[in-house]
Amino acid sequence: MLDSTFFALSDPTRRAILARLAQGEATVMELAEPFEMSQPAVSRHLKVLEGAGLISRRAEGTRRHCRLQHQGLNAMEQWLAMMREALSRNYDRLDGVLASMQRPSRTPDKKGRQR
Amino acid sequence: MLDSTFFALSDPTRRAILARLAQGEATVMELAEPFEMSQPAVSRHLKVLEGAGLISRRAEGTRRHCRLQHQGLNAMEQWLAMMREALSRNYDRLDGVLASMQRPSRTPDKKGRQR
Repeated sequence: MLDSTFFALSDPTRRAILARLAQGEATVMELAEPFEMSQPAVSRHLKVLEGAGLISRRAEGTRRHCRLQHQGLNAMEQWLAMMREALSRNYDRLDGVLASMQRPSRTPDKKGRQR
Repeated sequence: MLDSTFFALSDPTRRAILARLAQGEATVMELAEPFEMSQPAVSRHLKVLEGAGLISRRAEGTRRHCRLQHQGLNAMEQWLAMMREALSRNYDRLDGVLASMQRPSRTPDKKGRQR
């Protein structure tokens, strides 16, 4: 899942399509317009986004409506949050090491000198 | 930039390498160990991560040390936050539409009937 979501977002057109869909549902035709792309070209991008759990498509007569799915975004956000947590744990540990280096064995006075 | 950062994270080995580096610096040899991969194979992944602004490498004698760079993660987080903001603006708008549908022109009584 994460493989395909991150891959889907590695293309600027697909990111722009998602940004448009974050504002609300759109048809394939409406999505194609601002990009000066053919509908088949847009459809290929939509297929990648759908496979990554980032959008869903539904037919309504001859029109296909696209809508953003939260699943894919949630997965990426969770992964990035996990990274941030690991990073902050690492910084806390470094802070601890630095603090213990500043007061080696005895308690220093306020100017940092050993008593 | 976003193209290469999102692309870099579309590979599970590269995500695992980043997760390892979030815990602190490591040499290429240390990174290769848990993956049962050759050092050249790991080096190719590291090159992709470096190109995406996700890690930096520095030589120390014959060893190469790798360290996480925040630049790439920050860029992705900013993009995802922008998406979340657009989504919540969209929901606020929908809430407004729904609210106006629930009280059309006159104020309905508690059972929703028009007075």
